[in-house]
Amino acid sequence: MARSTTQPTARRADARRNIEAILDAAAISLSRDAEASIAEIAQAAGVGRVTLYGHFSSRAELIDAVVARAIQEGDAALDALDLSGDARGALVRLIERSWLALVQIGSLVTAAESALSPERMHELHERPASRVERLVQRGQAEGVFRTDLPTSWLVGTLHRVMHGAAAEIESGRLAHDDAASVIAATVLAAYTPPGVAVPPADTWARS
Amino acid sequence: MARSTTQPTARRADARRNIEAILDAAAISLSRDAEASIAEIAQAAGVGRVTLYGHFSSRAELIDAVVARAIQEGDAALDALDLSGDARGALVRLIERSWLALVQIGSLVTAAESALSPERMHELHERPASRVERLVQRGQAEGVFRTDLPTSWLVGTLHRVMHGAAAEIESGRLAHDDAASVIAATVLAAYTPPGVAVPPADTWARS
Repeated sequence: MARSTTQPTARRADARRNIEAILDAAAISLSRDAEASIAEIAQAAGVGRVTLYGHFSSRAELIDAVVARAIQEGDAALDALDLSGDARGALVRLIERSWLALVQIGSLVTAAESALSPERMHELHERPASRVERLVQRGQAEGVFRTDLPTSWLVGTLHRVMHGAAAEIESGRLAHDDAASVIAATVLAAYTPPGVAVPPADTWARS
Repeated sequence: MARSTTQPTARRADARRNIEAILDAAAISLSRDAEASIAEIAQAAGVGRVTLYGHFSSRAELIDAVVARAIQEGDAALDALDLSGDARGALVRLIERSWLALVQIGSLVTAAESALSPERMHELHERPASRVERLVQRGQAEGVFRTDLPTSWLVGTLHRVMHGAAAEIESGRLAHDDAASVIAATVLAAYTPPGVAVPPADTWARS
């Protein structure tokens, strides 16, 4: 009887360890090379391909799990951020911290964009997007962000400008160190109500 | 001797007709459904799959050819546009006409984004992008567009905001008829120099 209760538990613990090892290996491999293969990831995780496929039935499913975890971790870091005060300053702080999270996952972004559907990407970004949404709504209510465009559009614009910066860096058209301030300057201007002066880019920048 | 000179010519004419039929069918199929299969496209073109693969060795290669042709056609339409006068007004006209071209190709955009690499997409957009680039440079020289961000970044921002609008429409978050003015309002603001008031969105709008 001891056997039948211990073994499944041990198997579950094994499985959990394997899944963690696979997710860790995939996160590292895909952050360095968006086209890292299942074989490479399995090898880095120290498991066989059969074991890997036992947990993730396709490359897309694995990427999905890695991205979900990366977003969750990035989101936890953003929870610690002080977003009080002028909404424009809070936006710049949120951009700087989000950009850091995006840099850490490297080419995983590219892997995600080619393996996951736009709808799934949207779903995975729901929590971080809702934080941006609350901030945009607050800025709109306080009159510092424009209200002539839908909140969802302004939120999406931040997301796209940020991912655009990653693509520009990858193709050598944007310097890594300039990215956060370029993103902030662009989004701050895009959010400015018509008739109001665009705030100087470095008013709220930390650096 | 007549046979050996006529037949290759006839075969070449046949091949050209088949290629045109395949490109036309692919353009229509993919503009309606980004996931249209090779089998569906071959059927719509009235050729066999073997014939299709004889001309395009993969789905990506076919999509590449369709996108290249669509961009070329859109680009020809933009050549007719008057981009003189205030660079901000010219930008709005360019956005309105480019958006029309983008709407016409429908979900082909989605197909292109999932089948072609970011680098290839960049390459295909070189001519239309250089038109935007000249306009942005002129606006920067005339002081109506910001110079604190690189020209290439401003050009890329227009491209991404426009493609973002297509994605927002597809997922039901943006109304079709609002898109051109939302894009124009966003890009005009993003291009405004710090310290200068964002122009009211409808100053230069046609509609």
